[in-house]
Amino acid sequence: MPRQLKKRSRKAGLPPGSLIHIGEQLIEKTKITVFDYDETYLQEKEIRTTDECRQYKNSPTVTWIHIEGIHETRVLEELGVIFGLHPLTLEDILNTDQRPKMEDFCEYLYVVLKTFYNNGGERKEITSEQISIILGPKFVISFQEKETDMFKPIKERIRTGKGNLRKAGADYLAYSLIDTIVDNYFTILEQAGEKIEFLEESLIKNPSTQTLQAIQSLKRDMIFLRKSVWPLRETISSLERAGCQLIHESTNIFLKDIYDHTIQVIDTIETFRDMLSSVLDIYLSSVSNRMNEIMKVLTIIATIFMPLTFMAGVYGMNFKYLPELEWRWGYFFFWGFVIVIAISMLVYFKRKKWW
Amino acid sequence: MPRQLKKRSRKAGLPPGSLIHIGEQLIEKTKITVFDYDETYLQEKEIRTTDECRQYKNSPTVTWIHIEGIHETRVLEELGVIFGLHPLTLEDILNTDQRPKMEDFCEYLYVVLKTFYNNGGERKEITSEQISIILGPKFVISFQEKETDMFKPIKERIRTGKGNLRKAGADYLAYSLIDTIVDNYFTILEQAGEKIEFLEESLIKNPSTQTLQAIQSLKRDMIFLRKSVWPLRETISSLERAGCQLIHESTNIFLKDIYDHTIQVIDTIETFRDMLSSVLDIYLSSVSNRMNEIMKVLTIIATIFMPLTFMAGVYGMNFKYLPELEWRWGYFFFWGFVIVIAISMLVYFKRKKWW
Amino acid sequence: MPRQLKKRSRKAGLPPGSLIHIGEQLIEKTKITVFDYDETYLQEKEIRTTDECRQYKNSPTVTWIHIEGIHETRVLEELGVIFGLHPLTLEDILNTDQRPKMEDFCEYLYVVLKTFYNNGGERKEITSEQISIILGPKFVISFQEKETDMFKPIKERIRTGKGNLRKAGADYLAYSLIDTIVDNYFTILEQAGEKIEFLEESLIKNPSTQTLQAIQSLKRDMIFLRKSVWPLRETISSLERAGCQLIHESTNIFLKDIYDHTIQVIDTIETFRDMLSSVLDIYLSSVSNRMNEIMKVLTIIATIFMPLTFMAGVYGMNFKYLPELEWRWGYFFFWGFVIVIAISMLVYFKRKKWW
Amino acid sequence: MPRQLKKRSRKAGLPPGSLIHIGEQLIEKTKITVFDYDETYLQEKEIRTTDECRQYKNSPTVTWIHIEGIHETRVLEELGVIFGLHPLTLEDILNTDQRPKMEDFCEYLYVVLKTFYNNGGERKEITSEQISIILGPKFVISFQEKETDMFKPIKERIRTGKGNLRKAGADYLAYSLIDTIVDNYFTILEQAGEKIEFLEESLIKNPSTQTLQAIQSLKRDMIFLRKSVWPLRETISSLERAGCQLIHESTNIFLKDIYDHTIQVIDTIETFRDMLSSVLDIYLSSVSNRMNEIMKVLTIIATIFMPLTFMAGVYGMNFKYLPELEWRWGYFFFWGFVIVIAISMLVYFKRKKWW
Amino acid sequence: MPRQLKKRSRKAGLPPGSLIHIGEQLIEKTKITVFDYDETYLQEKEIRTTDECRQYKNSPTVTWIHIEGIHETRVLEELGVIFGLHPLTLEDILNTDQRPKMEDFCEYLYVVLKTFYNNGGERKEITSEQISIILGPKFVISFQEKETDMFKPIKERIRTGKGNLRKAGADYLAYSLIDTIVDNYFTILEQAGEKIEFLEESLIKNPSTQTLQAIQSLKRDMIFLRKSVWPLRETISSLERAGCQLIHESTNIFLKDIYDHTIQVIDTIETFRDMLSSVLDIYLSSVSNRMNEIMKVLTIIATIFMPLTFMAGVYGMNFKYLPELEWRWGYFFFWGFVIVIAISMLVYFKRKKWW
Repeated sequence: MPRQLKKRSRKAGLPPGSLIHIGEQLIEKTKITVFDYDETYLQEKEIRTTDECRQYKNSPTVTWIHIEGIHETRVLEELGVIFGLHPLTLEDILNTDQRPKMEDFCEYLYVVLKTFYNNGGERKEITSEQISIILGPKFVISFQEKETDMFKPIKERIRTGKGNLRKAGADYLAYSLIDTIVDNYFTILEQAGEKIEFLEESLIKNPSTQTLQAIQSLKRDMIFLRKSVWPLRETISSLERAGCQLIHESTNIFLKDIYDHTIQVIDTIETFRDMLSSVLDIYLSSVSNRMNEIMKVLTIIATIFMPLTFMAGVYGMNFKYLPELEWRWGYFFFWGFVIVIAISMLVYFKRKKWW
Repeated sequence: MPRQLKKRSRKAGLPPGSLIHIGEQLIEKTKITVFDYDETYLQEKEIRTTDECRQYKNSPTVTWIHIEGIHETRVLEELGVIFGLHPLTLEDILNTDQRPKMEDFCEYLYVVLKTFYNNGGERKEITSEQISIILGPKFVISFQEKETDMFKPIKERIRTGKGNLRKAGADYLAYSLIDTIVDNYFTILEQAGEKIEFLEESLIKNPSTQTLQAIQSLKRDMIFLRKSVWPLRETISSLERAGCQLIHESTNIFLKDIYDHTIQVIDTIETFRDMLSSVLDIYLSSVSNRMNEIMKVLTIIATIFMPLTFMAGVYGMNFKYLPELEWRWGYFFFWGFVIVIAISMLVYFKRKKWW
Repeated sequence: MPRQLKKRSRKAGLPPGSLIHIGEQLIEKTKITVFDYDETYLQEKEIRTTDECRQYKNSPTVTWIHIEGIHETRVLEELGVIFGLHPLTLEDILNTDQRPKMEDFCEYLYVVLKTFYNNGGERKEITSEQISIILGPKFVISFQEKETDMFKPIKERIRTGKGNLRKAGADYLAYSLIDTIVDNYFTILEQAGEKIEFLEESLIKNPSTQTLQAIQSLKRDMIFLRKSVWPLRETISSLERAGCQLIHESTNIFLKDIYDHTIQVIDTIETFRDMLSSVLDIYLSSVSNRMNEIMKVLTIIATIFMPLTFMAGVYGMNFKYLPELEWRWGYFFFWGFVIVIAISMLVYFKRKKWW
Repeated sequence: MPRQLKKRSRKAGLPPGSLIHIGEQLIEKTKITVFDYDETYLQEKEIRTTDECRQYKNSPTVTWIHIEGIHETRVLEELGVIFGLHPLTLEDILNTDQRPKMEDFCEYLYVVLKTFYNNGGERKEITSEQISIILGPKFVISFQEKETDMFKPIKERIRTGKGNLRKAGADYLAYSLIDTIVDNYFTILEQAGEKIEFLEESLIKNPSTQTLQAIQSLKRDMIFLRKSVWPLRETISSLERAGCQLIHESTNIFLKDIYDHTIQVIDTIETFRDMLSSVLDIYLSSVSNRMNEIMKVLTIIATIFMPLTFMAGVYGMNFKYLPELEWRWGYFFFWGFVIVIAISMLVYFKRKKWW
Repeated sequence: MPRQLKKRSRKAGLPPGSLIHIGEQLIEKTKITVFDYDETYLQEKEIRTTDECRQYKNSPTVTWIHIEGIHETRVLEELGVIFGLHPLTLEDILNTDQRPKMEDFCEYLYVVLKTFYNNGGERKEITSEQISIILGPKFVISFQEKETDMFKPIKERIRTGKGNLRKAGADYLAYSLIDTIVDNYFTILEQAGEKIEFLEESLIKNPSTQTLQAIQSLKRDMIFLRKSVWPLRETISSLERAGCQLIHESTNIFLKDIYDHTIQVIDTIETFRDMLSSVLDIYLSSVSNRMNEIMKVLTIIATIFMPLTFMAGVYGMNFKYLPELEWRWGYFFFWGFVIVIAISMLVYFKRKKWW
């Protein structure tokens, strides 16, 4: 699981709008890719200097500037100047410890979201990445912390012209990006769901401390996901109400669709939380059942052998006058007695359903 | 219990409106049944090709097209074209992992619901099925995942003309379908209620691990039902407020009635959840009572026999000078001592209410 | 406790408005009593046929028709025709598994409530009864499942003319009926409160499994009461807002008074729930304290006698050369040793506050 | 702790407005004190008959009639007639089982509150008293169940003319009374806070059943306080919005101040509840730690002495041919073996951190 | 942790507006620092008498009067007269037991906040301090309980003119103070986060009672922080809506930024609470696992040695006729038997996964 709190304190005392990158540097060099397209025309290139972006600002075509790696504050500053971004927006893009939110600056909308990856390692931990999207009248700028192929299907759809992405405006592109991110949650949740089912089965077979740790770790993942997804609902719902005509009427129905998906994600997280606490209950009671079983074994053994040991002790005594010792069949009577005691004890425990 | 999460990730990256069936295929071939009726006329037939539906779209009679089996996306596509359904509606019908909701497209209302079956198997698990209903001005199209006889009573009422179903419009037919689905919840809940009562009784008699698993399984069923029924309330309440005159004034009072039933279902689920957690409490404390009882037996046995075994050990010692061993009645004194100790111990435990 | 869920499934598939009695038949024959009165005039009679009611519908005097026993659907049907009741109202009256609610049909108000009795049996279980009240401009029709003397004080007040019941209209009569029902809750709650106090005292003296079952049973009673009282709040508050002038301005202040009582009842139920869970906490920890005590006894006994038994065993060994056995005072040294060990152990446990 | 539910059932079946005192009689005779004052004039007297109050009703000076002891219903009835109080108000004053509330009768405001005392006894239980305040245009009537010196500071302020109580109107006097009651909560809470801190310290030293009972008793006090303080918030906030100009604009800022205090009280109660449940957690886990410790002692003793006792038993056997018994140093070898076993066991437990 | 409740009862019975310092005196002498500045001019001085402040009230430059130490009520009284502060404001400044809130007196805004320090001691407890800010048209007065260097960065920014603090108005200064306080929470939360991670790791290694106490102490810190931060959200949101033009339009976006940070703080606190309860769960179940392990050891030892000790006892008996004792290899058979029993027991436990 990722750290719950990033080193935000580095910024304490600085004036607002100070551009400081909060988070880990996950990529060596910032990579800027530009897609400039309309229904008939498409240009895709990787650019070196932010200066090259200037031409796209007021072009009639839709432009998607995708930035991977946000630790170079200089790049951001320059983009901020070119596209007229507010210093607080730039500060928020750099601060990877944001809560999902939408801010309407009228000239542009600023949306910040979280996406989650399964980092594939042995413990299959979930890591998160912050994605910022700026939607202007004819452009979309997106910021990612590292290079991933999450947006590959969208790039494909732009290149091939499949679907109506090429026909629609910048708002539809922004919608497609957000949709991809939300769809991604389902993948993460499916993996979590499989883990929970696996845990349930392994619990019944053999409750170990590892199982407990796995439950707790999943619980924390859910806390963590929930923290990111709850505000998402509000974010998307505020997008639907965004003013300044940056979002067209026709895109609204698609936003409603994402909104439904978000509710679905929240529902699933809540269901998983409920399921995890019932798994925990099963764990705890199977632990206490084990204890019960151990105690039963101990008690049965003790209850059978203590009286017998006492009897053996009695006939080991050295009293001068101890009549049974003189009997011809004394020893065999003793064994008979032992067997009777043992069997009647076992019958008693059987009746009490201990056995 | 059904899986909590279906393989929705198959759709990640696809453009919205992509028609992909999410869920298991539960039936071999899609079956389309058409009921076309007004107060005096009735036609019922099973059709082969979607083309045959075209005639019903603008006919003055009420038409109910009931589709069982939704895995054939081609059928849906064609129906979509004929009745002018939005691509997102078609996508939602195919995705059986929906949350109950109502969407008002003005030309038609789209309602998606969940129904539950007891799959009759040994473990009497609950399975769910998604039902989509499209209500147009003079037609209702309903989609089910498999063939069931759930809507049989409605078909009967259409055939016999009992009640005012034949007299009323398409909205009343849609209401009747929803009413049937909600009534179905009561059947499921009654079965769950009986299980809970059975569990309570069997708990008092004999708390076993099976009981615990049954409690947990019922708890999960309740989580699962609740997830489907909570949004239902909102769905039905939004139906009452639906615009575009698809729902007549006279049907509203019936929707209010379903709304009350939904609240009743939610109430019952919440009550069952409360009851299940109190059953769980009883289970846990009866387990710990058992432990107590076992410990008591162990302690009583140990407390009685340990001192006695020690005494037997003492007179088994080989000291040269051990006066009691020489006594004429030593052995009988010993037994007298043993009996006194044992009885006084038992009296002590009796007083402490251990016995 | 009454069953949580009645056999509502008997109605699944039937058209709405089907008159089917859901619940147990609690009385042999339906009994209809009529009170017809104004400030100066009073007529009280028991009637046989519903036809006799017809005259009261439009009479200028206030008429109270009280029906005990609702299993005869025919009676209801006829009353429905005479007083113009909606089929759904009749259906709701017959279905004794209703949630308290108020429905405003403008010609009349329909109120359904629950009342509770202590069925006086050995286990003093609470049973519930559904009471339906129909308030028309000049008449009140009330339906009860069985014959009780709950409304006796109201009948007395009508007969004697005490209070301003005879002076006021039908709405004040309806208010008085509801007030009686709500006052009844306080009686039930007082009994529950006494049970809780009794449980608390008996817990401290002797925590038994019976106590636990009594706690759980009270908890369920509270769940059950709560389910009925929560919607009551809303019901009464909607009565205050009822349109169509069926409720006069002057009665509103009395409804506000009942509303306050309802809140008080809800508060008390919540308080009892809190108290019951703290009683449960006490129970659980007194059980675990008992366990602790048992373990202490076991441990003290074992810790004292195990070393001693070992020592006795040592001097029971048959080694050829075992010097202590030859000593003149060996046996007495042994006993000295035993006493020293035992006392020092006891002192140790005393210090550890085990004793 | 005071009883949670008073004998309200005595009133079941009576018509509304029946004047019946519900609660215990806490004082022998009702005592009526009158303060009549304006900025320059002050009259204070104890009166015998309610008739003497009549003169104050329309006098231009502010009059405070303070009644201690409410069991004499006749006094109330007479006051009701003189000051034109609604029968339901009189009923509410007599019923000491009220929830805090404010009722606006336009001619007067009726406020009912709860105050709490520490009854100073050995167990330092909290008892509550109901205080009713009636605010008219130029008079305040307050009702207390018994004689206390809670309002002494206000009487002093009236007598000395300190502060602007004498300058302000009746609403400011009513405010001052309420303020005194709310300030009183802080005293009760401080004592509760000290008890909690004391409990925490004593828990760490020695967790006893007494501590548990003290925790539960405090928890119940908090439930009880909360029940009274929650509605207080709403009560005061509705005072701010009261119509009919009984409350002057200038008093509103003071009501806002009390409102803040009420929130503070609620916050503190919630914090105490949280703290108490964490104290309970500490208690429970320290109990289970004790159990652990006891089990460790038992296990260590048993694990050391069982093998040794077995060995002693072996050499106590009477086999004809048992070679070790013949050895010259057999007995000493035996002791060497015993010491080696015991020490290695202890080392093992030490490593496992049991020791 | 700081005390949850300060000695507010000292004020019970006093008229509102009584200036009494509630809290501990944390500084010897009140220290007043004045910053008077505009874009080009800056004066910074420490003043002795409140009289010197009078000149700044209506000056066109922005004035920041920072007061450290609030126990001298005389200083406050004088400032109150000079700047026209309401007596209730002064009372609130002195009462360090306030809930964060904003009050709009139109001539000035009064904001009270809490800040937290890690008092650096051995147990690293969190202490809180109350900070009051008064924002007038051209002045800001801030009150702190003791001297700290929390506002040092702001002083630096004023001195150096970095950022646009010097260019903006008094509202921006007030915003900067609040921003500093909120940023401070992140520092505290980071430390808490590190503690939680440390606890988790140490739990897995060795669950001790100290760990439990550390968990509970952190939990209480969170309760405490939460109590202060929840109302903060509302406070800042009401600042945004403050009337009377004390807050300029341009500052609002910065307040929105703080608001987001506050939400972030609340989110983190809630997450920490969730994490702490899951840490507690791990603790509790690792304690019960330990118990299990101890019980297993005890049971294994007892189960192996009890039968063996019995057998040894049998052959220690003194029966005249006990055939095995006469056997040549009897003793060795005995040992063979012992070894077989022990090994088969161990195999049994191994299979049951006890070993």
